[in-house]
Amino acid sequence: MYLLEDLFQLLGKGNVLTGDDCAPFEQDWRKRFLGKALAVARPGTTEEVAAVVKLCAAASVSIVPQGGNTGLCGGATPNTSGKQLILSLSRMNRIRSIDTANDTLIAEAGCVLQTVQAAAEQAQRYFPLSLAAEGSCSIGGNLATNAGGTGVLRYGNARELCLGLEVVTADGEIWHGLRGLRKDNTGYDLRDLFIGSEGTLGIITAAVLKLYPEAAERNTSWVTTNSIANCVALLALAKQRLGPTLTGFEIMNANALRLVQAHMPQLTLPIALDAKQAGNEPYAVLLECSDHEGGAHAQTLFQSLLEAAFEQGLVHDAAVSTSMQQRAHMWHIRESIPLAQAQEGLNIKHDISLPISAIPEFVETTSQALGVAFPGAQLVNFGHLGDGNLHFNLQAARGANAAEFLASNQARCNSLVHDAVHFRGGSFSAEHGVGQLKASELARYKSPLELALMQRVKTAFDPTNLLNPDKVLSA
Amino acid sequence: MYLLEDLFQLLGKGNVLTGDDCAPFEQDWRKRFLGKALAVARPGTTEEVAAVVKLCAAASVSIVPQGGNTGLCGGATPNTSGKQLILSLSRMNRIRSIDTANDTLIAEAGCVLQTVQAAAEQAQRYFPLSLAAEGSCSIGGNLATNAGGTGVLRYGNARELCLGLEVVTADGEIWHGLRGLRKDNTGYDLRDLFIGSEGTLGIITAAVLKLYPEAAERNTSWVTTNSIANCVALLALAKQRLGPTLTGFEIMNANALRLVQAHMPQLTLPIALDAKQAGNEPYAVLLECSDHEGGAHAQTLFQSLLEAAFEQGLVHDAAVSTSMQQRAHMWHIRESIPLAQAQEGLNIKHDISLPISAIPEFVETTSQALGVAFPGAQLVNFGHLGDGNLHFNLQAARGANAAEFLASNQARCNSLVHDAVHFRGGSFSAEHGVGQLKASELARYKSPLELALMQRVKTAFDPTNLLNPDKVLSA
Repeated sequence: MYLLEDLFQLLGKGNVLTGDDCAPFEQDWRKRFLGKALAVARPGTTEEVAAVVKLCAAASVSIVPQGGNTGLCGGATPNTSGKQLILSLSRMNRIRSIDTANDTLIAEAGCVLQTVQAAAEQAQRYFPLSLAAEGSCSIGGNLATNAGGTGVLRYGNARELCLGLEVVTADGEIWHGLRGLRKDNTGYDLRDLFIGSEGTLGIITAAVLKLYPEAAERNTSWVTTNSIANCVALLALAKQRLGPTLTGFEIMNANALRLVQAHMPQLTLPIALDAKQAGNEPYAVLLECSDHEGGAHAQTLFQSLLEAAFEQGLVHDAAVSTSMQQRAHMWHIRESIPLAQAQEGLNIKHDISLPISAIPEFVETTSQALGVAFPGAQLVNFGHLGDGNLHFNLQAARGANAAEFLASNQARCNSLVHDAVHFRGGSFSAEHGVGQLKASELARYKSPLELALMQRVKTAFDPTNLLNPDKVLSA
Repeated sequence: MYLLEDLFQLLGKGNVLTGDDCAPFEQDWRKRFLGKALAVARPGTTEEVAAVVKLCAAASVSIVPQGGNTGLCGGATPNTSGKQLILSLSRMNRIRSIDTANDTLIAEAGCVLQTVQAAAEQAQRYFPLSLAAEGSCSIGGNLATNAGGTGVLRYGNARELCLGLEVVTADGEIWHGLRGLRKDNTGYDLRDLFIGSEGTLGIITAAVLKLYPEAAERNTSWVTTNSIANCVALLALAKQRLGPTLTGFEIMNANALRLVQAHMPQLTLPIALDAKQAGNEPYAVLLECSDHEGGAHAQTLFQSLLEAAFEQGLVHDAAVSTSMQQRAHMWHIRESIPLAQAQEGLNIKHDISLPISAIPEFVETTSQALGVAFPGAQLVNFGHLGDGNLHFNLQAARGANAAEFLASNQARCNSLVHDAVHFRGGSFSAEHGVGQLKASELARYKSPLELALMQRVKTAFDPTNLLNPDKVLSA
């Protein structure tokens, strides 16, 4: 195999992994997909990425770009042929520059998200992208999958936080699109085409990211409501009262909180659940406000929201954090749900979004339908209600064989949920992307026209199907 | 010509204009371009738009989509062949629906921007896109050109205000992409490809637009500074102090204000200019704050900004509006600059953007270079500093023959300014688009790779070059 020799020569032997050394790169984070790679190449510069692509093109070896390998849809995992090259961006992890007067930062694709956040903070700025995997995911992967997370309500998805890109194309050319401009109407929006394309149209090597002023105070509160409809009504009230200071609005149903209690008993809920109750209600809402004026102002504003919410009967009980520790504790509970689910056992996950107005009826109708179709199973409903994004997961009944439950019910459950979402104008993948996991859902729910337009884009950018083949668009 | 017969049949004779009736559609708003159309078709529904496209494709007649015909780059003006069809979206002017719980509105492409703003207001919501032509431009044109305007600092360009699109493709098919979702990661971002493509990739027929809560109070202030560097420093301070309540930051140099004084003497400046001075300084800054808490809070916040700005020596004088009338007056002055320029005579216009950090040095260096190259000419520098977007225009010396000045200097002046912008990582078209006017600049300043990628997109979506040929990408 000449390609390996050429890669050794280009990158040095230490930066081309083969055999067992590839193992950590061949499986996705959730262990849903296990591939076999020809090798893992770890270029250290954009020019090296371009050279790797050219070598692969010449050898007809397809490329699977990989960042922090924390994706949830298998988009960065190779197939089992042993013939694909994993191109890891992990060595390209420099913050290239920070421009505080322009409120921008240039980061290489392999920068860990937390490193970007920290670099912004050091410059007295705020980079708002935040998600559970931030300690290991990379900004290149965040952009390739248009990551969402907990700050979208106020700051938008990864897409909205990026002003410019540097990309290596399927021809091994470098697109120098690292512009730090808020306005630029000079031709087609190539940037947004690469963002969210999961490495199938080009390999993102660096990005210009938007920074924001730091808030003087963040205020986190925990509120309980007795229905999903009241959660939605509270969201509307909070948007009206708090305006742009409302930066987070997360919900958790009672089933989700019970799992946290069962598996992380050390995490006391700010408002205890009634031990005798079962089911979806009550919901807990985690509200986050980011205030530029300071703590007193934040408290006053939030207090007035709460009063109105109590008056309108939207809220049952409320706890306001009074220390950094309490804030962190509330977020910790919210972020422990996926792990609590994992400890409970295998489960059927969904990452859906809906018009917010459609959510109460959707949740009610679909909970009932799931109850009929899968008796005893627990609906674990939580997520970013402020963005209309729910993780609407189904957990096997306690004591049931979860693996069996999954094997026999997953396809039917996905269809039930995704059909209900599609019917109401929603999305079967709000923030996790498509990868391999949802390529068949894409083929199922998108119109033939939309699929054809996407295929035309793919063919235009990567006619030989060199970049991450069979991800997003299935063959 | 069978096409005309077919169009008559399809749309009714009254909706197919020919001969002199086409005249108002054949010239752009600034009267820079005069074309000759085969006819103007005015379909009333998306299905009719699709049918018109199919008829044109069969007859090999290319199509120039047109909204309110207020574009500044000739993107909606046909060529002089008499063989192109103007497709006017003006009859598609319905607000299809408003969803307040989802904070979205669906508007047809031909809706006048002001109508969209008013519909939002009636629903106690705010649609932030705002620009001088809002009384006649259409939302379809705003999206096709990714319009900017005065609210970008806080709310983004037209692109950021759109969640979904309905588009008729070059094949006459309808893409039903009217999704009202804040998060949707299901494949390539076709929406953002159509936005800003100026009708060359598809015809936008309707859009889902984002709405925001209404502010309780808008606070407008007029401040003078003695340099562009101080304007930039004041912007940084205002972003830090006012956070997301800062919704507008416009600057005007003294030359711009002098033109307003000369041609609209009834518009008294909030802070008078020294009649003896000449040149760029002082600058006036118009700051707009949108407050969710009310007038008292807005005043306190702004007062504390002003104190800090005076303390740091950034500001020379300040006037705060205390009534709706004063607010409107300040904005009226700002918006009168283009008209004052027109009354002064022909001038060389630029619509540039730069990293904000690069602006002070750029303005100083380029003003000097223009002074040397075009002695006596007046630099009229104004625009949306908060977005790094300046209208950096050159007006012939008073008393000079402006037409002659333009004819002999425009190309050289454009090169001087755009080269300086390009060198600093800026854009030769921040918010006006490319159209015909700047197609040669696009070819000049974009890399061969970027041009090739754009051409591939065009070919993928419109292989027969049916849609708005020779706009954006020149043949």
